[in-house]
Amino acid sequence: MTASLVDTPSVGAQSAASPPTPKKALDAYRRVRSQSEALCEPLETEDYVIQTADFASPAKWHLSHVSWFFETFLLEPYVDGYQAFDPLFTYLFNSYYQGVGSPFPRPERGALSRPTVKQVYAYRAHVDRAMAELLENPPSQHSADIQCRLALGLNHEQQHQELLLMDLKYNLSRNPVLPAYRNGELERCPEAKPLNWIDYDAGVVSVGFSGAASDGTLFDGFCFDNEGPRHRVFLEPYRLADRLVTNSEYQAFIADGGYDRHELWLSDGWEACRRQAWRAPLYWFERDGEPMEYTLDGPHTLDPHAPVCHVSFYEADAYARWAGARLATEFEWEHAAAGLEPTGHFVDSGRLHPFAAKDAGEPANAPRQCFGDLWEWTSSDYGPYPGFRPDEGAIGEYNGKFMCNQRVLRGGCCVTPAGHTRLTYRNFFYPDQRWAFNGIRLAAGSS
Amino acid sequence: MTASLVDTPSVGAQSAASPPTPKKALDAYRRVRSQSEALCEPLETEDYVIQTADFASPAKWHLSHVSWFFETFLLEPYVDGYQAFDPLFTYLFNSYYQGVGSPFPRPERGALSRPTVKQVYAYRAHVDRAMAELLENPPSQHSADIQCRLALGLNHEQQHQELLLMDLKYNLSRNPVLPAYRNGELERCPEAKPLNWIDYDAGVVSVGFSGAASDGTLFDGFCFDNEGPRHRVFLEPYRLADRLVTNSEYQAFIADGGYDRHELWLSDGWEACRRQAWRAPLYWFERDGEPMEYTLDGPHTLDPHAPVCHVSFYEADAYARWAGARLATEFEWEHAAAGLEPTGHFVDSGRLHPFAAKDAGEPANAPRQCFGDLWEWTSSDYGPYPGFRPDEGAIGEYNGKFMCNQRVLRGGCCVTPAGHTRLTYRNFFYPDQRWAFNGIRLAAGSS
Amino acid sequence: MTASLVDTPSVGAQSAASPPTPKKALDAYRRVRSQSEALCEPLETEDYVIQTADFASPAKWHLSHVSWFFETFLLEPYVDGYQAFDPLFTYLFNSYYQGVGSPFPRPERGALSRPTVKQVYAYRAHVDRAMAELLENPPSQHSADIQCRLALGLNHEQQHQELLLMDLKYNLSRNPVLPAYRNGELERCPEAKPLNWIDYDAGVVSVGFSGAASDGTLFDGFCFDNEGPRHRVFLEPYRLADRLVTNSEYQAFIADGGYDRHELWLSDGWEACRRQAWRAPLYWFERDGEPMEYTLDGPHTLDPHAPVCHVSFYEADAYARWAGARLATEFEWEHAAAGLEPTGHFVDSGRLHPFAAKDAGEPANAPRQCFGDLWEWTSSDYGPYPGFRPDEGAIGEYNGKFMCNQRVLRGGCCVTPAGHTRLTYRNFFYPDQRWAFNGIRLAAGSS
Amino acid sequence: MTASLVDTPSVGAQSAASPPTPKKALDAYRRVRSQSEALCEPLETEDYVIQTADFASPAKWHLSHVSWFFETFLLEPYVDGYQAFDPLFTYLFNSYYQGVGSPFPRPERGALSRPTVKQVYAYRAHVDRAMAELLENPPSQHSADIQCRLALGLNHEQQHQELLLMDLKYNLSRNPVLPAYRNGELERCPEAKPLNWIDYDAGVVSVGFSGAASDGTLFDGFCFDNEGPRHRVFLEPYRLADRLVTNSEYQAFIADGGYDRHELWLSDGWEACRRQAWRAPLYWFERDGEPMEYTLDGPHTLDPHAPVCHVSFYEADAYARWAGARLATEFEWEHAAAGLEPTGHFVDSGRLHPFAAKDAGEPANAPRQCFGDLWEWTSSDYGPYPGFRPDEGAIGEYNGKFMCNQRVLRGGCCVTPAGHTRLTYRNFFYPDQRWAFNGIRLAAGSS
Repeated sequence: MTASLVDTPSVGAQSAASPPTPKKALDAYRRVRSQSEALCEPLETEDYVIQTADFASPAKWHLSHVSWFFETFLLEPYVDGYQAFDPLFTYLFNSYYQGVGSPFPRPERGALSRPTVKQVYAYRAHVDRAMAELLENPPSQHSADIQCRLALGLNHEQQHQELLLMDLKYNLSRNPVLPAYRNGELERCPEAKPLNWIDYDAGVVSVGFSGAASDGTLFDGFCFDNEGPRHRVFLEPYRLADRLVTNSEYQAFIADGGYDRHELWLSDGWEACRRQAWRAPLYWFERDGEPMEYTLDGPHTLDPHAPVCHVSFYEADAYARWAGARLATEFEWEHAAAGLEPTGHFVDSGRLHPFAAKDAGEPANAPRQCFGDLWEWTSSDYGPYPGFRPDEGAIGEYNGKFMCNQRVLRGGCCVTPAGHTRLTYRNFFYPDQRWAFNGIRLAAGSS
Repeated sequence: MTASLVDTPSVGAQSAASPPTPKKALDAYRRVRSQSEALCEPLETEDYVIQTADFASPAKWHLSHVSWFFETFLLEPYVDGYQAFDPLFTYLFNSYYQGVGSPFPRPERGALSRPTVKQVYAYRAHVDRAMAELLENPPSQHSADIQCRLALGLNHEQQHQELLLMDLKYNLSRNPVLPAYRNGELERCPEAKPLNWIDYDAGVVSVGFSGAASDGTLFDGFCFDNEGPRHRVFLEPYRLADRLVTNSEYQAFIADGGYDRHELWLSDGWEACRRQAWRAPLYWFERDGEPMEYTLDGPHTLDPHAPVCHVSFYEADAYARWAGARLATEFEWEHAAAGLEPTGHFVDSGRLHPFAAKDAGEPANAPRQCFGDLWEWTSSDYGPYPGFRPDEGAIGEYNGKFMCNQRVLRGGCCVTPAGHTRLTYRNFFYPDQRWAFNGIRLAAGSS
Repeated sequence: MTASLVDTPSVGAQSAASPPTPKKALDAYRRVRSQSEALCEPLETEDYVIQTADFASPAKWHLSHVSWFFETFLLEPYVDGYQAFDPLFTYLFNSYYQGVGSPFPRPERGALSRPTVKQVYAYRAHVDRAMAELLENPPSQHSADIQCRLALGLNHEQQHQELLLMDLKYNLSRNPVLPAYRNGELERCPEAKPLNWIDYDAGVVSVGFSGAASDGTLFDGFCFDNEGPRHRVFLEPYRLADRLVTNSEYQAFIADGGYDRHELWLSDGWEACRRQAWRAPLYWFERDGEPMEYTLDGPHTLDPHAPVCHVSFYEADAYARWAGARLATEFEWEHAAAGLEPTGHFVDSGRLHPFAAKDAGEPANAPRQCFGDLWEWTSSDYGPYPGFRPDEGAIGEYNGKFMCNQRVLRGGCCVTPAGHTRLTYRNFFYPDQRWAFNGIRLAAGSS
Repeated sequence: MTASLVDTPSVGAQSAASPPTPKKALDAYRRVRSQSEALCEPLETEDYVIQTADFASPAKWHLSHVSWFFETFLLEPYVDGYQAFDPLFTYLFNSYYQGVGSPFPRPERGALSRPTVKQVYAYRAHVDRAMAELLENPPSQHSADIQCRLALGLNHEQQHQELLLMDLKYNLSRNPVLPAYRNGELERCPEAKPLNWIDYDAGVVSVGFSGAASDGTLFDGFCFDNEGPRHRVFLEPYRLADRLVTNSEYQAFIADGGYDRHELWLSDGWEACRRQAWRAPLYWFERDGEPMEYTLDGPHTLDPHAPVCHVSFYEADAYARWAGARLATEFEWEHAAAGLEPTGHFVDSGRLHPFAAKDAGEPANAPRQCFGDLWEWTSSDYGPYPGFRPDEGAIGEYNGKFMCNQRVLRGGCCVTPAGHTRLTYRNFFYPDQRWAFNGIRLAAGSS
């Protein structure tokens, strides 16, 4: 691997940024690593073990896999005589890197009682000790690569922090006991203002990472390879809603037969809807006739003014069609959000559920909630940008090989680590997936 | 339905075209209808019945379904007191129009021995008689709609002529007897010239149907709704190969471990490849160590200079990656083919298999084989153009609801009816589908 | 193969019977062979082709497979220089004889349009010519084996005649058109007399084939290997119903919640019932609120006095439990039927549907309908009799390898060729199978 | 429920036995209950949670379900005002009693992290306290029923002790780490003596429970309902092997192509073998070319002289056919074992793996290892004995509804609680199941 992962010709600003000092690097490493463990504090030992669907990995696995990443891509190549904690972990905690060998089958991650949770923490400590040594005394001939991979490894661990909460929510929700991840209160949202449309003119715009990331990123100038190269696209005139769709708006769609009217749905969506018997977003249910929602704080009465959450692309698309609108392309979204601060409601807020849009945003007449609250489904197929070329070797499997059959989501959500996301960040899921914190923002052609 | 199906603001040229006279309309109707039956002449009665995969409908079904289309969208609405041939056929031969009622399940089309082939031809004759009456004396207040739907119905039947041959090829190929659709000779191709690249500059270009279709279309100015509205896109500089990839080139990919090297494949493609145990294009096999290919003319020795055929998008994509290239977007393709005559090797040639590119094309330094020979996989997700709005009612299900999870193919193939395809024509298949006459053209960024 | 297939020590009567003369053998051969073709007379060409479930083979396949049996087990071994009609047929029309090579997959029998029906009849004629020559001039050193295998081959073809009708009924029934196999009338049954119980004492009885078969068998003294050796079993006292359960009795079971009361069902049966959504016997349906039944003569109003038909073992067992009774063991059945004439309502009656029991039977106080009308589910697992030993070679796969997971049925049915069944005949199906002509006779412990 | 569950007319000895005193009952209760917990001592918390196949329930579930049994069938009906530990547990820990409500789906037992292990033990303590009160002061009008259900509940818990070890073995074995349940040594077996045959004459024999159980049972005179009524069967002359088949004998079967020769297998068995890719008994593997076996004590070199273990019925049947023998019927087995002490190698030995037969048995010329070591597959379908009638209500679902599609096994195994099994005890599994401690004893017809 070369620095090119984050230092492509079109991402020039990055190389200009001064590299972090050993101390800054180690601090960042420790901050991210401890955050993963902090998220697990409310868990019982048993909660670390279960996997209730192929896509919802055990907490134990996440904690191990992110350590495996540092072991595989930093400690093995750059520390002479590094002693792996357990050679079998290379196999057990490889997610999908065929280049590192055939991974342990994903649907069977919940079949493993060993290593125990205690051993997993010992594994983390082992890796942390070795990483501290490496970061304090990086071999000079590899320091650039190490910085590069460290940034990637930390951003990778942050991605898994988000996945950890998504997966825990799903895994706990399958239990008729409906255990809460933690027992918090959930502030009710104020009534949402009527949705406003913001208009954008046609024209050629540049999209993709340009090197001017916000301070919070790990590290300045970092982006994933799928965010570049920066390039030009032409946008026809369009409009974007100034906030996310709310639960009460989505209830109107349901009340109007939304889940029974084939003409609102894509053909594949209609089939998924029938096969999986969707009648509402994931986690909605009724108790004594009252609409309820399962959250990381346990079951709560559905909040009509909160943004609707945990819908598939198919549902988002059907809702938009019902509303006489459509979803935005990822480039329409990026263009509209281009001047905005990438701040909002992230995991550091302590609230693990989306909140209503603020009444007044800055600047005025700009979309709100672009960053945080919920990942926003776009109509864009997740594909490579012109000139995209993944890195050499196993690390090149990070993003590129998934560029088919998935849809791009933008903006980050309420369980995303603060500072992790950015304007050009491209998240992606299959169109029938609902367990991420996904929401809906409407778009339309020009009026 | 209104004329808007083919008369959108951005497809203005069409409404300007004078409507066909009754005689011209009836002639066109008879020409297309008789062509369907001509294609079935080589068949035994038993060949009409079988369906060997969900996607490969029986010939009998195709002949009936296209008649159902005329019955449902022209005879029922516009002929007072029209007597349906058999009311049950509304159910049996509806393909996927939920608006017309729940269709008979697609995977069970081969479960029907009745109606017999003889009855199917009687059904066609019944519809033809009623259509002739309608076209000779169209009710004046509906004549525009009738023209519109006639054009759609005829283009629809042409699409099914192509499907009929694709499906017959697949269905017959499942038989260890390897029966030929017909017993023809297959001329061997001359050796292909080395592949040349043609360069294109960056810029904003307009794509989508503009109303200037070639004479051969049914009727002038017709396009499918998915080809519009015409709109602008920005293309970064790119290069396009001047011909399709050949069998011998694809053999080199195989010989180089193409089907065993995960790093060449998209993740979903690699999974499809493993699950379906792909080792070569569909229809390739070996006999006594010699490479063979099953064709509509039966098994033949593989022709190294013919274009490689019956590959999935995943294989096309993997081949391109192996070759250090990529597939074109549909707009790169359309821009490159924009000045070319939409002529080439179609079904009327009598050869039901792709042929090599001609050595010298006109104009010089232009891609050859853009039209005919093989549908060319593009990297473009099949989605709606900006401003796309499907027609009201069941007929609006024609294209729009499939705009997810599929890839666009361009150009037409050797079993496409001559005059049926055009510059802006968008065919689409799921990325793992191989039974259409699909091929590979390479593209790349600018040099 | 030796004569032991039908000439075991405990089946001694057979070897004592004088072998049939060449003329008698050829007559029998022609009679059985022409009967297969007579059954196909009502068919359209298309009806020969379809297969709508794994278990329901195309008519074309049955006609070919029985010919393959003669070719494989008589012509190939005993005719010098025999020329197979088509070498590929060895593969295509092998049902399950692993010893003859890997058979063509059963679920794909309906995928074959070729050989055409015409070719299938040509194949039959080819085999018939060769068989006639062989039977007229049997090589003397093999004449015993030839007689043995001829008897087996003819009984085998008779089994397939029954299967042919079962499979046709199923395959045609899947068509919403509900085409009839033939358009006959169905005489209504008179009201059934109340069910009487017949008592049997405890004791040791002998069961299994003893060589005293009725005249109608092909040939005298023939039995399948699974009917022997004759051996002793102990029967506790029991009672047997004197007739089959009727439709109106079964309707009472349904009306009493039979399909919704888990406590009436075996665990595996309850699961099958739920999974397959059983609410009534196969082929029952409603039209305008009236109970209907699909028969080989097309749809008819359900006859309340006809025996209930096309139920699985699980349904028969649940019905018996609801009725406070149980099913008989195969030995209870055989013991009770031991003195009765094996005559009844078979296919030669011309009625292809069960009829009510005759009011008065001979002898008095004996069960009626034991032979013909419907195969009767027993509670007996289909297993080998003590000392059972299948024949050497592929022909030994005929019965023995299926002796697991199936239930024995006794007596023959309305589509069984007359003279084909006998007291010791053991038919067998999986407990969830319903497409055979199966019915229910109640049994109980002693009063 | 009445006392008839264990006090049928043919099980008369039981009612004659004096009922256990409160103290004896409570002692027995505590002994069994504490044994369940003792078996879990070696476990890590995480080991209690996992379920790696539908059939292999989590340890946590076993501990809870057996408590649910006492709660449902003793505390709820006989303790006024009994407070359930958690009302939801009625749903979560019901195994298959439809009469108690729809049970939580079996395949999802491993999806539950809560209740935690700690809560499960609290649940057990809650039930134990209430049971102690009930047993010390049983309401006199129900004391017979309570004794009856107590005996059933304790025998039920013993069955789950065996299942617990079977399931733990399976669940741990799926982990590439191959963790041991405990780290014990495994004594190697001495070389087995050549197999001897013991002959039995033909005749009528009585089988089924007769009330003369050994002292060790809980309680004297207890049997499961499926063991009666006692009744007569006729046995033809037969022979039985004097010991179980060994690993080295089974290796000879494998070396002789046992897993590749279709003619040795039942048809369904051959299909299971292919589909599941069986090449050896479950838990056999190779390490560096050496044959190994996974045991509850972790991986060990395969012991050639130990009895072969963890084979399906299909494998046992195929092995027997290869050896020119067959499996015994359950009645042949019972008749042969009738005079023997029901003692042997059970879980109390401390060795959780089968051991070789003792060289000299008492009495001489009797089969050895009939009790303990391994459950012995018989050829008998698991069905009801003549006159069998399950109990009223949910408790009647204990055995009767499973009497289809399964095979009887006899004798108990090395993880069966001592005193739990008996001469007439009928265990049962589906013919493809391998994770129980199952082995092979050969039988044959008379010589």
